[in-house]
Amino acid sequence: MEEAYTLEAVLAARARIAPHVRETPVLTSAALNAHAGCTLFFKCENFQKTGSFKARGACNAVLSLSQAEAARGVVTHSSGNHGQALAYAAGLRGIHARIVMPVNAPETKRAAALAYGAEIIACEATNAARQATADRVAAETGALFIHSSNDPAVICGQGTLALELLEQAPSLDLVLVPVGGGGLAGGVGAAMHGLRPETRVVGVEPAGADDAYRSLQEGRILPSLHPDTIADGLRTALGSHTFPLIQARLSEIVTVSDAAIVEAMRLIWQRMKIVIEPSAAVPLAGLLEGKVDAAGKRVGVVLSGGNVDLDALPWPALE
Amino acid sequence: MEEAYTLEAVLAARARIAPHVRETPVLTSAALNAHAGCTLFFKCENFQKTGSFKARGACNAVLSLSQAEAARGVVTHSSGNHGQALAYAAGLRGIHARIVMPVNAPETKRAAALAYGAEIIACEATNAARQATADRVAAETGALFIHSSNDPAVICGQGTLALELLEQAPSLDLVLVPVGGGGLAGGVGAAMHGLRPETRVVGVEPAGADDAYRSLQEGRILPSLHPDTIADGLRTALGSHTFPLIQARLSEIVTVSDAAIVEAMRLIWQRMKIVIEPSAAVPLAGLLEGKVDAAGKRVGVVLSGGNVDLDALPWPALE
Repeated sequence: MEEAYTLEAVLAARARIAPHVRETPVLTSAALNAHAGCTLFFKCENFQKTGSFKARGACNAVLSLSQAEAARGVVTHSSGNHGQALAYAAGLRGIHARIVMPVNAPETKRAAALAYGAEIIACEATNAARQATADRVAAETGALFIHSSNDPAVICGQGTLALELLEQAPSLDLVLVPVGGGGLAGGVGAAMHGLRPETRVVGVEPAGADDAYRSLQEGRILPSLHPDTIADGLRTALGSHTFPLIQARLSEIVTVSDAAIVEAMRLIWQRMKIVIEPSAAVPLAGLLEGKVDAAGKRVGVVLSGGNVDLDALPWPALE
Repeated sequence: MEEAYTLEAVLAARARIAPHVRETPVLTSAALNAHAGCTLFFKCENFQKTGSFKARGACNAVLSLSQAEAARGVVTHSSGNHGQALAYAAGLRGIHARIVMPVNAPETKRAAALAYGAEIIACEATNAARQATADRVAAETGALFIHSSNDPAVICGQGTLALELLEQAPSLDLVLVPVGGGGLAGGVGAAMHGLRPETRVVGVEPAGADDAYRSLQEGRILPSLHPDTIADGLRTALGSHTFPLIQARLSEIVTVSDAAIVEAMRLIWQRMKIVIEPSAAVPLAGLLEGKVDAAGKRVGVVLSGGNVDLDALPWPALE
């Protein structure tokens, strides 16, 4: 375990990003408590700047750069929330952001990154092409590459939400986080370990993109070769920073079906009257499928984001 | 003007219902401020118990009944939010609620009222049949009829949200409220007049159900004969209590197109990540269509509810 993920590092991140991100509310629902058989505290990162928790990590990474580094600008590859977040963070500092996006990225995502002032660079829709294009842009322009999850500053930024959550909902027995690249899960795990180690942090992953679950089982990083899940934010694999952190700081990772993800998403929209994206519904899906032992417990649930295409919802329209 | 709608009456309602309703949050959105050209404070009654502001009025009405009155039970007709709200309020007091619903009411609305313990009585889908059935039930059972809007206790209950809004967003220049039966508009107008008369209260009504707008023009209550609007909560007409109150306490009523209502609803979902029903989008639609002079002002916007059929959203699904 690296020393990068201390409580002090997360507290420093919080101070750094505080003027630029929201302390998002924690909502509760008597109906969903009854449904799940425990007391749920929903950390609403769908209300975060740029519509997801990614603003925390991106801001911490960009604001941690030296003047000389920042002057070079930043680059990343993303088809979604990290791209918007990095564009937002770069805008705060007045530096150039280049976002490599696959040609099949939704137009709304491209438009959002553009609206934050980023430059969009199209690439083929493969993981290899994304990384190769970002590497080429970094080499040609000198821009610093900021990974969406496998970056200590990003990880510590994501961990700041755990500090807020524990203040808003003390004495949690359990926190459930979605697992994609592991930046959120790792950051929350690190912060919780520093602040209240008796709170278990459990990762929940789509069964159709269960590379993190299998990586923990095998003790080595497995790639996410053919992810097949509606949770579009969770298709990426763990990395050299996030894998050992998750090994050390998460109690376990459980997997859930896409059917349970859609059911959980719809329940949250219907009962809580908030818009969340499929990836954000994954933790509640774990409870609905009985994959997590939470009966009677105080459970924090990280609703990671709300950037969903309203024209393509995962339930039928009757009109 | 009756003396029923004093600030004291609204304050008494607030004390009466406080244990049973939520002090709903006020949300802001930099993106929507930029879009509308003013500073918006959204009072989120979509997060209210039962999913709409109607819980306030129904609770105040039911909790104001004497023991002898309450023992008779309550009855109303409603295809929507008031039915759920009255069922909820009756449940709090442990009394029987009978809800007359047109046969074409959405199954979700029927299920919600049933879940709160109400008895559902079906009737033909006309205003005349609804009132006649409710009258018959009241006569046969002795149950007290609680109108969805034209009732002083209901009106004062709805006015409680204005007290909260002014505490949460002081010094408002303007408050925009949707107008259906006028209970919400009248209650907010009464409360604002008592607390801060320099805050203008403007009603916004769908052009396809503009009976209140025309009633103010003509100086008499016009019926809502053939309402044609997506804002299903706003198809009802003003009544003997709400009409004079609205004459006295609203600055004006403006009308908006259904296209603007759908655009406003979608903007709020997309930008604010919250679920609101079409009726709740009507005030923002008034700003989008330039019907209200709000440039540079501090504007309260009442988001009246979030009970929408997720299977029949007013924009196309692409899947």
